[in-house]
Amino acid sequence: MTSHMTGGAMIIDIHGHYTTEPPALQHFRDQQLAGLADPRRRPASTDLGISDDELKESVAPQLKLQTERGSDLTLFSPRASGMGHHIGTEEVGRQWCRVCNDLIHRVATLLPESFVGVGQLPQVPGVSPKNCIEELERCVYALGFVGVNLNPDPTGGYWTDPPLTDRYWYPIYEKLCDLDVPAMIHVTSSCNPNFHFTGAHYIAADTTAFMQLVEGDLFKDFPTLKFVIPHGGGAVPFHWGRYRGLAQAMGKPLLTEHVLGNVFFDTCVYHLPGIELMAKVIPVDNILFASEMLGAVKGVDPETGHNFDDTKRFVDQLAELSDSERYKIFEGNARRVYARLDALLTARGHPGRAA
Amino acid sequence: MTSHMTGGAMIIDIHGHYTTEPPALQHFRDQQLAGLADPRRRPASTDLGISDDELKESVAPQLKLQTERGSDLTLFSPRASGMGHHIGTEEVGRQWCRVCNDLIHRVATLLPESFVGVGQLPQVPGVSPKNCIEELERCVYALGFVGVNLNPDPTGGYWTDPPLTDRYWYPIYEKLCDLDVPAMIHVTSSCNPNFHFTGAHYIAADTTAFMQLVEGDLFKDFPTLKFVIPHGGGAVPFHWGRYRGLAQAMGKPLLTEHVLGNVFFDTCVYHLPGIELMAKVIPVDNILFASEMLGAVKGVDPETGHNFDDTKRFVDQLAELSDSERYKIFEGNARRVYARLDALLTARGHPGRAA
Repeated sequence: MTSHMTGGAMIIDIHGHYTTEPPALQHFRDQQLAGLADPRRRPASTDLGISDDELKESVAPQLKLQTERGSDLTLFSPRASGMGHHIGTEEVGRQWCRVCNDLIHRVATLLPESFVGVGQLPQVPGVSPKNCIEELERCVYALGFVGVNLNPDPTGGYWTDPPLTDRYWYPIYEKLCDLDVPAMIHVTSSCNPNFHFTGAHYIAADTTAFMQLVEGDLFKDFPTLKFVIPHGGGAVPFHWGRYRGLAQAMGKPLLTEHVLGNVFFDTCVYHLPGIELMAKVIPVDNILFASEMLGAVKGVDPETGHNFDDTKRFVDQLAELSDSERYKIFEGNARRVYARLDALLTARGHPGRAA
Repeated sequence: MTSHMTGGAMIIDIHGHYTTEPPALQHFRDQQLAGLADPRRRPASTDLGISDDELKESVAPQLKLQTERGSDLTLFSPRASGMGHHIGTEEVGRQWCRVCNDLIHRVATLLPESFVGVGQLPQVPGVSPKNCIEELERCVYALGFVGVNLNPDPTGGYWTDPPLTDRYWYPIYEKLCDLDVPAMIHVTSSCNPNFHFTGAHYIAADTTAFMQLVEGDLFKDFPTLKFVIPHGGGAVPFHWGRYRGLAQAMGKPLLTEHVLGNVFFDTCVYHLPGIELMAKVIPVDNILFASEMLGAVKGVDPETGHNFDDTKRFVDQLAELSDSERYKIFEGNARRVYARLDALLTARGHPGRAA
């Protein structure tokens, strides 16, 4: 593992999805969904027939960018928009989830220096998240994953399940705490024409989830539960004054006490002024480096000549960060939030810095 | 009219709601909604029995803050969370809308130096916005209003009506263009427990509406239509790189050409770093001063000792603004976007500055 020495840190990108999957995966999904209408079209097997070489080749573009941009390790999960919890039956969703997670496991096993797995859960609208415990345990124990993505709106944009603070969700939180595994709060695609997936649904969901946590008292019941809110926390840092004010008006403790012991934000914000704002208002202990490459926002920013999702450049430009703060954003916070990642890296001979 | 001389501008707050209404208004609403269950409880009359003195007294707290904080004029509309388009029947909604607008008209007539009216529309989930044209015309012609609030989600958080770019909305856009009246895109309360109204629904809706406009080509069909997206545009300025990148990936023109001729943001962002970011990424021509006082976020920020919603302080602290830019944010842009406001002020002997 090459350790790019930005603040002496290993550069851990905590938010990457497998968006360059071999075509066989999408073909399998087509067969699955075709099978809903015509059972004869169901896939004959969950063996996708993808060779190790094909897998390695499929992530070559990702690895090339990691090298070029200077990140060492990506926490890698199935394509977020592909989770599609609102599509098909529970049985089909469960099979799909296993197939996607297995593929991540294979990539992480083939290229352990570059990828560590994060899982998808077989959530179903209106079905208790209890149904995810088996797959969560499999992710951690059998596949060696260090986190999971938890969808706060399995309906894909209609929001008819209860808020994250409802006891409905408690079974999965209990298991997350038992396993010491954090959840990234991440919706999937939207089947609601009001919500463009990456431009509206993702960002609105991040904002909504945060406000649910402000309004509730979930972390009194689960003091060790950890959530990562991606895409810079949606609108939250931009409206930090609003959230501080609303919490105060509701008689809640300061947000630092009320939620920031448990809630973390990634740096998937695709311009420097956004990252600068985030670093100004969110405590450095709550910021985890991430880019969500490849795919969330593709292309080169004509204003900078660099890719929109090359977020490391933005963090590198935060001149006011001390070496120790830079270490936290790039490595230390990831190891603290993803305890199993820390254990894994330590076991591989890469201990973290003493706090 | 006292002109507080910040950049020599009249300070126009384009986003204020009547949140200190006399109790008789809420009593009327109670009777209306009780009447849905028991027709005998319907209000006997739409005459609320509120005297002019009571009205003046009810806005005294608002006027006091306007004076203290140095704003001259507020574009004043009915309480946003009170619109409740998802509540009751179309008939009840229409009556409620007229009563609320009439009250705004009375306040603006009693205190014309301090308030200019903006209307509520009798939107109903699943009902064509054509049904709002009559009230829109009444607002402009009979009540002298200079704008209206348009709810992009009349369902109150379930988002089952079409996106703003759908032809479903075209009849109301045609009338807005005919009348040269802008619409503020503003949701009402949420009946979905996932969405706290001011902390999630408002901000998510702002973000969602903007992305709908990026994804569509509405302003090709309505080149003179003007939308104000409140609360600083939701998450948009914070994720300006994401929106520029998504537009580019969709093959749209630059956002400046694609939407910023028609879309404007207010300054209802309740901390300095947020306003600083906004001024950095959003062209000054698209920023309109506003505070949404009283009520959106109450209380004093312990970090500054000033009220969260005293947004003028933040704009005043933007040292890099030229005098002419400051004039635009406080007055010039409001007069450009709200053409009828400009005409009204000019007729009263307060012409705007030449561009």
